Amino acid sequence: METTTERGLSKTRIEALSDGIFAFAMTLLILDVKIPSLELGHEAGLPRRLLDVAPRFLAYAMSFLIVGVHWVGHHAQLHYIRRTDRAYIWSNLFYLMAISSLPFSAGLMGQYPRQPIAITIYCLTLIVAGLLLFGQLRYAAGRGQLFDPDIDPRFIAAGGRRILMGPKIYLAAALLSFLSPSLSLLLCILTPLLYMVPGEVDRYWHLGHRRS
Amino acid sequence: METTTERGLSKTRIEALSDGIFAFAMTLLILDVKIPSLELGHEAGLPRRLLDVAPRFLAYAMSFLIVGVHWVGHHAQLHYIRRTDRAYIWSNLFYLMAISSLPFSAGLMGQYPRQPIAITIYCLTLIVAGLLLFGQLRYAAGRGQLFDPDIDPRFIAAGGRRILMGPKIYLAAALLSFLSPSLSLLLCILTPLLYMVPGEVDRYWHLGHRRS
Amino acid sequence: METTTERGLSKTRIEALSDGIFAFAMTLLILDVKIPSLELGHEAGLPRRLLDVAPRFLAYAMSFLIVGVHWVGHHAQLHYIRRTDRAYIWSNLFYLMAISSLPFSAGLMGQYPRQPIAITIYCLTLIVAGLLLFGQLRYAAGRGQLFDPDIDPRFIAAGGRRILMGPKIYLAAALLSFLSPSLSLLLCILTPLLYMVPGEVDRYWHLGHRRS
Amino acid sequence: METTTERGLSKTRIEALSDGIFAFAMTLLILDVKIPSLELGHEAGLPRRLLDVAPRFLAYAMSFLIVGVHWVGHHAQLHYIRRTDRAYIWSNLFYLMAISSLPFSAGLMGQYPRQPIAITIYCLTLIVAGLLLFGQLRYAAGRGQLFDPDIDPRFIAAGGRRILMGPKIYLAAALLSFLSPSLSLLLCILTPLLYMVPGEVDRYWHLGHRRS
Repeated sequence: METTTERGLSKTRIEALSDGIFAFAMTLLILDVKIPSLELGHEAGLPRRLLDVAPRFLAYAMSFLIVGVHWVGHHAQLHYIRRTDRAYIWSNLFYLMAISSLPFSAGLMGQYPRQPIAITIYCLTLIVAGLLLFGQLRYAAGRGQLFDPDIDPRFIAAGGRRILMGPKIYLAAALLSFLSPSLSLLLCILTPLLYMVPGEVDRYWHLGHRRS
Repeated sequence: METTTERGLSKTRIEALSDGIFAFAMTLLILDVKIPSLELGHEAGLPRRLLDVAPRFLAYAMSFLIVGVHWVGHHAQLHYIRRTDRAYIWSNLFYLMAISSLPFSAGLMGQYPRQPIAITIYCLTLIVAGLLLFGQLRYAAGRGQLFDPDIDPRFIAAGGRRILMGPKIYLAAALLSFLSPSLSLLLCILTPLLYMVPGEVDRYWHLGHRRS
Repeated sequence: METTTERGLSKTRIEALSDGIFAFAMTLLILDVKIPSLELGHEAGLPRRLLDVAPRFLAYAMSFLIVGVHWVGHHAQLHYIRRTDRAYIWSNLFYLMAISSLPFSAGLMGQYPRQPIAITIYCLTLIVAGLLLFGQLRYAAGRGQLFDPDIDPRFIAAGGRRILMGPKIYLAAALLSFLSPSLSLLLCILTPLLYMVPGEVDRYWHLGHRRS
Repeated sequence: METTTERGLSKTRIEALSDGIFAFAMTLLILDVKIPSLELGHEAGLPRRLLDVAPRFLAYAMSFLIVGVHWVGHHAQLHYIRRTDRAYIWSNLFYLMAISSLPFSAGLMGQYPRQPIAITIYCLTLIVAGLLLFGQLRYAAGRGQLFDPDIDPRFIAAGGRRILMGPKIYLAAALLSFLSPSLSLLLCILTPLLYMVPGEVDRYWHLGHRRS
């Protein structure tokens, strides 16, 4: 039943834990979109008060989508891995820790959307998550030899470049936040949307990602 | 182990993430049914204070059930899909975002059950979720060609009509909320119950949903 | 991969949703064990303040265990089911709704452990959950014909009696709560422990639960 | 589909519930890292206020990692189990209860990092969890006879010693907390990192863990 090789732990439960943490982190994000509380008799002011919720909702939506991007990337990576080892499992736990801390960073940014420190912490969380996912890929492709040997190395390299796109933009956004919080936020909003555009990775994907 | 075709990502992990988000969104809803807080020595007033919780409990119950309806629909759709692609995965993420934002909308409605804006936001969330699920179906049946080619197109069309029943009623409820919040709420309560009644879809289902 | 029969929805995703809701309801219960908040400079009073948390912790522990009992029972029931239908899926959703509302009832009881109304609501939640699980069993064994026909009917009958043990005790506890909240709580604590004792069901289980 | 033997309950759903509880307990921990709330017009004080969050973040990170350690250990144990029985399922539920109560203990420690009672409760939670996991291993290897008989008993013994390392250090940390909270915290931080170092268990693992 489990796709366990003789050595290392099974992929199935790594996926189960990861999918649980992805799903839960994505859903927890909504808790930071706080329902406005109005005193009895003043409920008519609700529409105006809901506008104040907008930055939090934006932080929720862009965080949900970028965790979705991570889920797709993590999913694709694990799909091609044949076996796991101690180093991979631990780097995966650190990676999941970064993902599961996003509800804090996203809540902070939703509450203080004009404070550079809040934007920077948000960006840092996603830079760390991106670098950890990239590190996992490099380890699996290199010293760990965890991938199927038939996989075209250009496919892995393209995947790595795609992962690094996020950290690069978030680094720019973090630096920009001290000059213009609004422009920095715009960059953060654009990033998950950029990942919706097919890229070099898809070419290999559709070719069947085998060495030719 | 995974039902991955050569192209596209595996259905198994899409189901795992989706089921996780459905399950959490459904369970998170209960957090909006707040326990009344009474001062020391006034605990005897608890029964009366529990009556105030009724609208929140109603919002919880009807939201739990409509997410259940969505889970059944999403489940049935994914069941007949043979392969996935980038567009399908992304539309699925947007769909799950709508589902995972329901605890906010439901909490808002439970707290302000007589405010048209609260009812409208609740209905809008479910209209968006319904349209996204419908869009996924159309894409999978049309341009994406993700379904098993043997499936009777009348089965898919019946499924589409069934999905659209929800958005239509919620649109009526949203408009009605500005005239009569109570009638609008009644419509919202009825919708998940309407989905319990078997429909045209079941006929095809029981026929084995193959072209005849 | 999925154990879907031609008719009805697959068991795999029903189990996935159910396990998600069970796991989440169990873990959410801990959120009602509130961390005492002490003002700066008065942290030395923490040990005494932690004693106040005891009733909430008790409510957490006994609720966690009874949900565990339900998980075992639900698990065993679904294990012998060969196919599902609309009625079964809907009764399952109502059952899961009762389970997912337990964090509210348990939190209420932890906060007001001496109020009969709080104990009664807690017991009612578990009576409803028990009766729904019993109803699912009866439907699956009777009109729905969802079980493997080889299963010994005495096994199913023994399972039904075991499920009903809970609702019976909780009914007694609810009535008793108006006379003696303490004795009523004691009954609630004992119930999950009673389910740890093997019963008639285990005899059939170990016989391989086939008609002889 | 399910790896159920004729006797006992299936491993698949035990894993599903366990992975769900592990994933949620890990993600729920972030909710205790509270976002500082600043009054309107005083948002510039955010960077300083974020420093106050540091102990809570530390409590989050070290708890996330130690639950990760438990997940790996539980995973490895269940991997070698061939069948389950009533006693194993119940000890597993008590074990999961300890794991799911960690968000409370970790939140307590993050809020009161210098109070011996808070550190002691945190350590006690992890001592109980460790002993329960150890007890499960002993039961499965001994009276329960749940393991594959081919497994080298030295592998199981090494696993048991590795599990007990945690409770031993947490016991020392609990006692130390009354003398020096800081040193005690340091021990708690080090424990998950110690588990990252390969040990005796890995030797057997890589040998294919069969009797020679």
